[in-house]
Amino acid sequence: MRTTPGWRATGPGTLRRTPLYRRDLRADDLAVRVDYCGLCHTDLHAVRGHSPDAPQPLVPGHEFTGVVTETGSGVTAFSVGDPVAVGNIVDSCGTCPMCEAGQENFCHSFPTLTYGGTDRRDGSTTLGGFSREYVVREAFAYALPAGLDPAAAAPLLCAGVTVWEPLRSLGVGPGSRVAVAGLGGLGHLAVKLAVALGAETTVLSRTEAKREDALRLGARELIAATDTARMAAARDGFDVVLDTISAPHDPAPHLRLVAMDGTLCLLGHLGRITVEVMDLLVGRKRLGSAGSGGRRATAEMLRFCAEHGITADVEVLPSARIHTALDRLARDDVRHRFVLDMSDLD
Amino acid sequence: MRTTPGWRATGPGTLRRTPLYRRDLRADDLAVRVDYCGLCHTDLHAVRGHSPDAPQPLVPGHEFTGVVTETGSGVTAFSVGDPVAVGNIVDSCGTCPMCEAGQENFCHSFPTLTYGGTDRRDGSTTLGGFSREYVVREAFAYALPAGLDPAAAAPLLCAGVTVWEPLRSLGVGPGSRVAVAGLGGLGHLAVKLAVALGAETTVLSRTEAKREDALRLGARELIAATDTARMAAARDGFDVVLDTISAPHDPAPHLRLVAMDGTLCLLGHLGRITVEVMDLLVGRKRLGSAGSGGRRATAEMLRFCAEHGITADVEVLPSARIHTALDRLARDDVRHRFVLDMSDLD
Repeated sequence: MRTTPGWRATGPGTLRRTPLYRRDLRADDLAVRVDYCGLCHTDLHAVRGHSPDAPQPLVPGHEFTGVVTETGSGVTAFSVGDPVAVGNIVDSCGTCPMCEAGQENFCHSFPTLTYGGTDRRDGSTTLGGFSREYVVREAFAYALPAGLDPAAAAPLLCAGVTVWEPLRSLGVGPGSRVAVAGLGGLGHLAVKLAVALGAETTVLSRTEAKREDALRLGARELIAATDTARMAAARDGFDVVLDTISAPHDPAPHLRLVAMDGTLCLLGHLGRITVEVMDLLVGRKRLGSAGSGGRRATAEMLRFCAEHGITADVEVLPSARIHTALDRLARDDVRHRFVLDMSDLD
Repeated sequence: MRTTPGWRATGPGTLRRTPLYRRDLRADDLAVRVDYCGLCHTDLHAVRGHSPDAPQPLVPGHEFTGVVTETGSGVTAFSVGDPVAVGNIVDSCGTCPMCEAGQENFCHSFPTLTYGGTDRRDGSTTLGGFSREYVVREAFAYALPAGLDPAAAAPLLCAGVTVWEPLRSLGVGPGSRVAVAGLGGLGHLAVKLAVALGAETTVLSRTEAKREDALRLGARELIAATDTARMAAARDGFDVVLDTISAPHDPAPHLRLVAMDGTLCLLGHLGRITVEVMDLLVGRKRLGSAGSGGRRATAEMLRFCAEHGITADVEVLPSARIHTALDRLARDDVRHRFVLDMSDLD
């Protein structure tokens, strides 16, 4: 076994720096020195919901960048010193139709998550990237393209690919009319990616407060929900509405904005929702969702971001300030993603 | 005013033969002798829910065929003696984006329904096709192609176009994998149309009882919900699932059968439904609906049916047996659509 320092949850909302165990390298494993790890709502929910009596340890963190420090005997794609990135999936069955289609995120026997998952070989619980080292199968590590800042690139590995997959699968390109609801970690990357894909991009927000920010990200316009005249005029106006709002909410107002044969894609809140079928019928609209990404889409998204100079807007904090980051994220006090710098763990 | 005999609702579940008034022909109107009118669940619900104290008269019937008997002074597309068909929409605003796109069924100021609608010029309540004459704007009448049996063609005008629009808008063609849930008026036409479009078509049913019927309609297979092994094996197997079941039900089992980036299209039950967003996320699936059709799609569907010799499987009853038809429809005792022969009204 290997040991590395990391942040482990000890109770609801609290983490403590502690030594963690990592497995000895298998033939197809990489050891990665974790330099930067993004922090998102999933992590917040996991830490806040953690009981000190939980049977399994919790170490969050599922979008990180770093450098390869050691390679297993069979590794061919990476060498020591290579900059790499890891997302929220670290393994899958590899044989089901979804894995064969390059959509390991939809693996029929469920992908192995970067933390809180169950290792497919030894049955251990995976521990996440809020630590100084991670051991990962090379198939689930991605070369970090030169030119992408490693701190600002970390959120691409979960937030980035989560918005990239629906943009691509819904055929967004030049001339597409895209609206993005919410300007958090997912939303601000959705705007950047949609704009870079050539879409006419609009931000939907509760108020006018984020207008300047939306325009700076490349949006043509911000429509505030409070502007009822503008909302009414925008009816049936968007081929794709990406809803990245993490709090539960009624999908109906956003459905009204979807054009005929268009799609409202729910990315933020992932519980049960109720919808009037008539709201889908009138205008032949569709409701969809997406989450994380397969290996192929992740690699494609990283190449696209490198070509277009896209990274997340991040606020980097030393990992020791993790509680500050969690508290501020809970009240949406971040533009647009916290990234923890793990070098203070040395 | 013109008068014509017809079937008017007098209380919950009952209709009585009575003289009805029709407007004098406007310049763009046709008078149509109604020969055959289909009967569907919408009619059943309307008649059963009718109160004798209702402020507006109710004469059901919204998919019929007949012959032009008189034309308004400005009519150019039709002549006396032409066979025609009329569906569930008889007018729309004509100027909104949906009307301009040829989707009058989604008119922003709501299309005028064939019965229970409000005439856009004189404000009167429209009375449906369970009568011997109907007066309709020529723009909302369709030439009935030669070779289509007028009785069996009547249900194409609502049931037919309601399944045609989603099949076309979802890109169904050769090689598409389509599943149709339910084999009623909508479902059996969905199977015929999907097969004629070249799709590999499967019927989803509660039991094995309709297997022979499904294969006769052109389906490759019937999967019974009770066959849990087959249902599990069919996971992610269909690009399009058309759900034509009219009773409320959980969409989750059908969503599991949808392939990645595919769509579950709800056509039967049109109330509120609850869905787990996770069931849309895993496999990037979409939920949609559709209803009736615009003028362009209706004309296109009729041409396609004429080319492929497609009509509904109908049981024709004299209009005086309307109560029998309603009772039997309520217990699904029909293969696959009742059509009333209006000639007994003479």
